Amino acid sequence: MSCTRILGIDPGTRVVGYALVEVPTRSKSSAGPGPARFDYVECGVLRARARDEMHVRLVEIASGLRELLAEFQPHELAIERAFHGLNAASALTLAEARGAFKLIALEHGLSVAEYAPAMIKRAVTGRGRATKAEVQARVQLLCRLAKEPQADAADALATAICHVQARRLSGVTEATPAKAKVKAKARKSP
Amino acid sequence: MSCTRILGIDPGTRVVGYALVEVPTRSKSSAGPGPARFDYVECGVLRARARDEMHVRLVEIASGLRELLAEFQPHELAIERAFHGLNAASALTLAEARGAFKLIALEHGLSVAEYAPAMIKRAVTGRGRATKAEVQARVQLLCRLAKEPQADAADALATAICHVQARRLSGVTEATPAKAKVKAKARKSP
Repeated sequence: MSCTRILGIDPGTRVVGYALVEVPTRSKSSAGPGPARFDYVECGVLRARARDEMHVRLVEIASGLRELLAEFQPHELAIERAFHGLNAASALTLAEARGAFKLIALEHGLSVAEYAPAMIKRAVTGRGRATKAEVQARVQLLCRLAKEPQADAADALATAICHVQARRLSGVTEATPAKAKVKAKARKSP
Repeated sequence: MSCTRILGIDPGTRVVGYALVEVPTRSKSSAGPGPARFDYVECGVLRARARDEMHVRLVEIASGLRELLAEFQPHELAIERAFHGLNAASALTLAEARGAFKLIALEHGLSVAEYAPAMIKRAVTGRGRATKAEVQARVQLLCRLAKEPQADAADALATAICHVQARRLSGVTEATPAKAKVKAKARKSP
């Protein structure tokens, strides 16, 4: 059976959670009533070495992300949207990392969907202000995992599940084609 | 004579200014007293199509940046640092673009230096609160250009010149080797 593979990402500058789930393509079960169906594939974390400076960490994590894309060939990326709750400097640093990860996914041909943190929590726990522990317990249950995933991996899994639910609500039953085709750009000297 | 080629970038989500300058490597003139010497190479803008959605624009501009790197083979990137003066949403969107551009440069082997907007303006006009027009007029003069560069190209040129001055102040006379070597990353499943 043909599947759409979704990569969920919990972005960070040192630890990035990732998760892969699959939904059946063109199946009535994925569009009809009842809970949105998906199959759990994998989740885990990409870690940069803490003692490395920011730029090195960014390249390390980007490299890990490229490996994931090559290995699992996902069709769609779901990623946590800009987080305003942090202090300004942290929010900007995190936004830089998120921009880099999005570019990698877009250039790899994935479509990119973004979800607010509260929406992601609501998707798995029913509460927008759920704790990290609640998210971990809930995704373990939803994916029938033998043990609780690490917190960042659990957030990534929740993000992927949120995307499964959102695309089902929109009636999407096939992989969204990436819109990002590169056009000739105008480069102008002064 | 061997040169260090510097790429200055004024990041944006629709228009990105760029500028290339060269400084002589290991030359006494680049480390001694007097103004920091450099040669102007080129400046201009990369434009994404305004009607395209954000993700497409990011990929379009990234593609233009990759072309610049391939054509000019610069050694160092100078880029404007996070700008806190914008509203939060704009600042985060701009930070995403900046993160994507930094990753491209780092993966291309460039070292990346960042400068605050006020420092960039001060480097070319002597005033941290100079207007765009003042920056344009000043870089035209410094680079002996026949006409004023477009505003974003002028900002990129000012960023490159700021870097020329900063590396000279630090006694740098050779291209900074990129520190971003990719190390084996630990990928962990839960």
